Amino acid sequence: MPIYQKITGEILSELRKIVGSDHVFSGSDVPVEYAYDAGTKDGPSQSPEAVVFPASTGEVAEIVRLANRQLIPVTPRGGGSGLAGGAVPVNGGIVIDLRRMNRIIQINPAARYMVVEAAVRTLTIQQEARKHGLLYAGDPCSSDDCVIAGNVATNAGGNRAVKYGVTADQVYALEVVTPQGEIVTLGGRLKKNATGYGLVRLIIGSEGTLGIITQVTLKLQRLAPLLPNFLATFPNLSTAVNLVGILLDSEIDPISVELMDRQTVTDIERYQRENTFAGHESDCLIIQFEAQDPADLAKKQGRLKEICHSYGCISIEEAEGEKIWQARRIWGKAIQAGNPVGASEDIVVPVDELLTFIEKLQALVNEFHFEYRIAGHAGDGNMHLRILPGAVPLSDWEAQLVVFRQQLYRTAYLLGGRLSGEHGIGLKRKQFLRSVIQPCELELMKAVKKAFDPNLILNPGKIFDVDKDITTEMR
Amino acid sequence: MPIYQKITGEILSELRKIVGSDHVFSGSDVPVEYAYDAGTKDGPSQSPEAVVFPASTGEVAEIVRLANRQLIPVTPRGGGSGLAGGAVPVNGGIVIDLRRMNRIIQINPAARYMVVEAAVRTLTIQQEARKHGLLYAGDPCSSDDCVIAGNVATNAGGNRAVKYGVTADQVYALEVVTPQGEIVTLGGRLKKNATGYGLVRLIIGSEGTLGIITQVTLKLQRLAPLLPNFLATFPNLSTAVNLVGILLDSEIDPISVELMDRQTVTDIERYQRENTFAGHESDCLIIQFEAQDPADLAKKQGRLKEICHSYGCISIEEAEGEKIWQARRIWGKAIQAGNPVGASEDIVVPVDELLTFIEKLQALVNEFHFEYRIAGHAGDGNMHLRILPGAVPLSDWEAQLVVFRQQLYRTAYLLGGRLSGEHGIGLKRKQFLRSVIQPCELELMKAVKKAFDPNLILNPGKIFDVDKDITTEMR
Repeated sequence: MPIYQKITGEILSELRKIVGSDHVFSGSDVPVEYAYDAGTKDGPSQSPEAVVFPASTGEVAEIVRLANRQLIPVTPRGGGSGLAGGAVPVNGGIVIDLRRMNRIIQINPAARYMVVEAAVRTLTIQQEARKHGLLYAGDPCSSDDCVIAGNVATNAGGNRAVKYGVTADQVYALEVVTPQGEIVTLGGRLKKNATGYGLVRLIIGSEGTLGIITQVTLKLQRLAPLLPNFLATFPNLSTAVNLVGILLDSEIDPISVELMDRQTVTDIERYQRENTFAGHESDCLIIQFEAQDPADLAKKQGRLKEICHSYGCISIEEAEGEKIWQARRIWGKAIQAGNPVGASEDIVVPVDELLTFIEKLQALVNEFHFEYRIAGHAGDGNMHLRILPGAVPLSDWEAQLVVFRQQLYRTAYLLGGRLSGEHGIGLKRKQFLRSVIQPCELELMKAVKKAFDPNLILNPGKIFDVDKDITTEMR
Repeated sequence: MPIYQKITGEILSELRKIVGSDHVFSGSDVPVEYAYDAGTKDGPSQSPEAVVFPASTGEVAEIVRLANRQLIPVTPRGGGSGLAGGAVPVNGGIVIDLRRMNRIIQINPAARYMVVEAAVRTLTIQQEARKHGLLYAGDPCSSDDCVIAGNVATNAGGNRAVKYGVTADQVYALEVVTPQGEIVTLGGRLKKNATGYGLVRLIIGSEGTLGIITQVTLKLQRLAPLLPNFLATFPNLSTAVNLVGILLDSEIDPISVELMDRQTVTDIERYQRENTFAGHESDCLIIQFEAQDPADLAKKQGRLKEICHSYGCISIEEAEGEKIWQARRIWGKAIQAGNPVGASEDIVVPVDELLTFIEKLQALVNEFHFEYRIAGHAGDGNMHLRILPGAVPLSDWEAQLVVFRQQLYRTAYLLGGRLSGEHGIGLKRKQFLRSVIQPCELELMKAVKKAFDPNLILNPGKIFDVDKDITTEMR
């Protein structure tokens, strides 16, 4: 580990000079929330020595320059809604909370783009686009809590990736503060660009380890006049999953195809005390598509019903959008309410391997006497799983889970899948990443990290442990 | 410059051992074509010391390991159709000609992907997809000559970027030989992936400086039943350009919107000795869109004509696809036939800044007493320009061109544009890149290059001159 320095009184006063004394917390004034993100509340508390709240990119750059000079680790934080511990300051140091940088700088409906500061909420961006008759296509389930820079840092996915791709596909350009405190704009409002390396895509998904995202230029899409939602129910998971590829291949051109197993549906109804699924407590798919007019809607709806019935569905009905998506969003809370002990997964596999993956998952769960729930972005192969102890005594659970996970991840990788579809590696999955990634790929990532951040001050300890390798260099 | 070693007899015999003695050329046996690519035929001859023709990824890796050990520069070469000198071996050494690696490894029409070796021609990929009723959406104008690894290395664009994006958008995964001779697979057939850095996108567009692409997994699209082409003519360029944004914003959802000025049209007809434009020698747009059936075609065609007439077109007619695209493809040759002296540009700007850019271009051309021709991918803001000496004596041309280019590029950058949309920087544009890029961005690129290739053996002298900076380190 590099020899990081502690924050002294002198450094604190420099920080206060940069952002103003009202915008620095230190020592016991640091609120407890900064020791966690939404995915690590049950982990060990790891508080920063100071939290600072810059109001501008210039202030962020000044803080980072100071930290880089003094060898103090810096962890950027957006909405704190991350699920992999990306915003947890494992080495103490400074947390940069970006919440004051929450302005929408520009929206150009004609050229269909929006420029926003780091901490604008994703929901706000969606709503602002809609006011102009446009769609911001990024749609992580945490859209009320998360902010755009966090979406970019984890390359967040969400419900509309089937048609519109992930956050990376919505980003034109980024303003970034580098680990050495320089301000750089990467990318542009360009459909083509062959002018040097694609650094903008390198920053996206780098979980705050290569730069702090301070401003984002986002693409906006035409908003389809009609966005109907359908709920299809099935006698078993395989029949539901089997339909996914057929739907994607059809002229329905869905923007979302979400899978939920019957036990999840029951858990949600119990949690909400509402009969959202109206007696259809079966394995189900939620399907959303775009329609240009009522005739287009009728045609696509007809085709959807035809396909569903040909492939063994029990029922297919139009669903109330707000209700069904709210149910989908709270699945994790609903399951945890009834099953406080469990582990979350974010595996992604090629869509055409999804059926095989779920069969192998089922076999593995049986072998370990675990249970599982699934609420997956089936249309893009990204499965959110909640693994539950089932019949296993809690005393054995943790140890067995480690073995189970190794096997689960190996299964996913053998099918061409990956450990994380949209939550990131962060703190939580780095020990697993090491065991499944090609060593050469990991070494290239570490080399890139060192190239960007020679002092390893920016969000250390995330994705991988490059710091271990450079101990001798630092001494 | 790093101290590269010359190829000795011993190294030659090692190369022969790796690929077989029939597959190594050296010294005066090296064909003259290896000193150039399609864009540098008028430049100085820069021959490699040896050309090798590996048949497999394993052989490529062995060659690179040997070169890295011996500090011999390696330049990968695909179809040789590059326009920026990317395949020109400026430091001698080894050229790896990938032409023997030209197998289609797998095509899966149901899951819509194709796995191909590096040197499969882009046209072959398009044709193979079509046989299965699918579309490979990458469509550079050089598709008969270029090969897929070259498309990936330059992030080639082409005619369909308006709807389908550039080569990067067609790539699921790459097999790459790193500068240290390791074989790594990056990316996957995944719509989402938040598992570490997006290295696949970093390799794409890196012009063979970060790795040698040996295998590519490509996305395939549904092929629309109808792909009609229309030719719209205009009284002047501004009226034509003004229509572009309106077309893109319409429900026609074009896949191509190409611009040609009237003088280019005349040059093409003269060159082809064919009346392709049937008396419409005006500034024009070629518009291609997809239609699902005759009714859809009629609706979109009606809307297209309506828009064109409202915005001042002279004529709008359906065009014969093969003929009009062939004319578009040979524009460069047609202009050069009548104007042997000239300079090519590949500038890209935001589509909504295109009109302003062309106005400024016109003013600049007037100021310098030059002429210009344009055949641009207007729908994505990527303008191919041919700058001609016009009234300027040839003795002054080269010197004035340098000044003109500096101003032209600055103009593009001020509008949010970039130097190259799809041809790359290579050898030809690196001195200009240096003058317009943010220094911090260039430094990050150089740092990434050094991280991947500490000995700087892979395609040195391209995009930038990192080698100058490390002279002291190398000694």
